[in-house]
Amino acid sequence: MGSTFFITGQEVRQAARANSHTSTTAGLAPGHIQANLIVLPSKYATDFRTLCQRNPVPCPLLAESTKPGCWSAIKSCIPSIPSTTLINQSSDLDLRRDIPRYMVYHDGELDESAEHTDLFTHWRDDDHVAFLIGCSFSFEAALCEADLAPGHIVGGMNVPMYRTTLPLNPAGVFTGGTYVVSMRVYKAQDIDHVRATTAPYASAHGEPIAWGWDAVSRLGIADVLQPEWGDCPLGPDGKELEFGPQDGGGIDCGEIVPVFWGCGVTPQEAVMRAGLQGTAMAHAPGHMLVLDCLDEVLKAQ
Amino acid sequence: MGSTFFITGQEVRQAARANSHTSTTAGLAPGHIQANLIVLPSKYATDFRTLCQRNPVPCPLLAESTKPGCWSAIKSCIPSIPSTTLINQSSDLDLRRDIPRYMVYHDGELDESAEHTDLFTHWRDDDHVAFLIGCSFSFEAALCEADLAPGHIVGGMNVPMYRTTLPLNPAGVFTGGTYVVSMRVYKAQDIDHVRATTAPYASAHGEPIAWGWDAVSRLGIADVLQPEWGDCPLGPDGKELEFGPQDGGGIDCGEIVPVFWGCGVTPQEAVMRAGLQGTAMAHAPGHMLVLDCLDEVLKAQ
Repeated sequence: MGSTFFITGQEVRQAARANSHTSTTAGLAPGHIQANLIVLPSKYATDFRTLCQRNPVPCPLLAESTKPGCWSAIKSCIPSIPSTTLINQSSDLDLRRDIPRYMVYHDGELDESAEHTDLFTHWRDDDHVAFLIGCSFSFEAALCEADLAPGHIVGGMNVPMYRTTLPLNPAGVFTGGTYVVSMRVYKAQDIDHVRATTAPYASAHGEPIAWGWDAVSRLGIADVLQPEWGDCPLGPDGKELEFGPQDGGGIDCGEIVPVFWGCGVTPQEAVMRAGLQGTAMAHAPGHMLVLDCLDEVLKAQ
Repeated sequence: MGSTFFITGQEVRQAARANSHTSTTAGLAPGHIQANLIVLPSKYATDFRTLCQRNPVPCPLLAESTKPGCWSAIKSCIPSIPSTTLINQSSDLDLRRDIPRYMVYHDGELDESAEHTDLFTHWRDDDHVAFLIGCSFSFEAALCEADLAPGHIVGGMNVPMYRTTLPLNPAGVFTGGTYVVSMRVYKAQDIDHVRATTAPYASAHGEPIAWGWDAVSRLGIADVLQPEWGDCPLGPDGKELEFGPQDGGGIDCGEIVPVFWGCGVTPQEAVMRAGLQGTAMAHAPGHMLVLDCLDEVLKAQ
C-alpha cells in the first residue's frame, strides 16, 4: 500500500536505497515525476534511442546516462527541460539502488532467481547505459484534480498493466516488440474528459491509445481481470471489478469501460521479444524512479 | 510512365501547374525530396500536429503553411532544416496547383465526381492549413545505390500502397485511424541490408515496419496483389508478381518477400476514418509535391 509519508522524490529514493520502502511508488511524493528505467549494454543504445523515436507513445524518452557505465548522473533528452531540473545537482543519485525493486534480464530472459532490490552485481561501470522513460503516474494528479481519480489511486493499489499484440515499430535489433499498456476504468460518458486531461502530458504517454470493452480483444489482452503486472483493476469507486462483458458478466457496458494508455514497461517487453544478448536491467513495474521535479514540467505549454 | 526529363523540383512543379504532367512523380527529379500533402480546416491543425507527433513513422511532419489559408509559403517543422532549404526563396510555390493530381474529401468522404488537377474551388484563403509529410521516395535513391533498386522503379511504375488494420495512436478528433503502407519486394537475404539502408531516413518513414509473407495477414492487408493505391507490385527484376504463397501460388517464400514501410497517405485515411467535417484536400497517392532540396537533407547525421 502506498504511504503518503514521502513528500519529495529524494525522500522516496533514499527510502528505496535503504530498502525501507520496497513496494510500489504509485501515489508516493504526489506531483513528482516518476520514471520508468531500462538499462542496456551500450552497443544497443543507438537502436534503443531509435525505438523510442519511432514509438514515442509507449516509449517517451526523458533522459539517459551522461556516459556509458554512469549510474550517478543523467542528461535530459527533452530540449526544453534542463538535466538539473529532473535530478537536482545537490541530489545524490544512484540508479543502481534508488528504485524499490528491479527486474534483471539475461539474454532476453527474466531472472526470477532472486528479488532484486539493487543492481550492484549486474551493472557494468564500463558499459551499461540507463534510459528514463515517462510514466503515466505523471498525469494522475491532473486526473484527480479533474474529479477523475483512477480507481487504483482511490483503492491505494498499483495500476494494472497488460501485454498486448499491438506491434511496436521495429528499430534495429528491436524487432517483434509489442505495446505494454496501463489501464484505468471510467464511466463511458467521462472518456472525452479523460482523453483531454491526459493529452497534454505527451512525455508521459499523453492521451489513451484505446478505450471501450471492444479494445480488450483488439489489443489482444488475454484477461482484463488478470493483468500481467500491477494489481487487479479497480472501478472508479476503488472497488474490485468482478466481471467484464467478455465473461458474459454483470457489468453494464454503457456504464464503465476500460481505458488504455501506453506504458513504460514496453521497453522490457521489447528486450524479451528481441532476445537481447547480455544483461539488461529495469525497474519492477509500478516501482519507479521518483525525480526531483513536478509533473507540470512535462505538461505541454 | 515516369519521364526523367525533369531535373529539379521546380521543373516538376511547373509541369504539374501547367497540367503537362498529371501522372505519378515516382522517379522524377531524381534525388529531390518528394512530399505528401494534407490540407485541413484550421480548427483541426492542433490535433493533426499531435497525430503526427504520436505517429512519426507513418506521419513524419516536414513542414506546414506559414499561416492559416496560406498556399504560397511553408515553414519547416524540422529544427535542423531551414524553411528556405525545402522551398527556395526564389521559387514561386502554389500548393493549390503544383502537384499533378489531388484528392478532395468532404465530411470525410472522397469526392470522386471529378479529377482534381488543382484546388482552386476548394481552398479557403482564410482557413485551410497545408501539411507536408515525408515520403518513402526519399530513400529510393539510396536503395538504388545499394544495388537494391525497388521493382517499381526498375519497371517505371508507381509504388503499391495498402490499407492496413494497424491502428494509429489516436489524437483528439483523429480516432479510428489505421496505417497505410507502401510495399517493395526483396529477396529474404537482403532484408537486413534494406532495413539498414532506409533506417537513416527517419523523416521519410525510416526502416520498414514489417516484412515477410506472414506480415501480410498481420497487417490485415486484403490482397497483396491488389493495392488500394499505386500500381501492382513488381519483383526486384521489375516484372509483375503473379502469385503469393497466400494463394497457394508459385513463389518460393524463401526467395522473395514483401517489405512494408509507413506511408504518407495515412493522413488521408485518418481524415476518412475520423469522418472529419468540412473540406480536406491531399495529393493523389504517388503524385507528390517535389521540393527544391535533395533527399540527403533528410538523412540523419
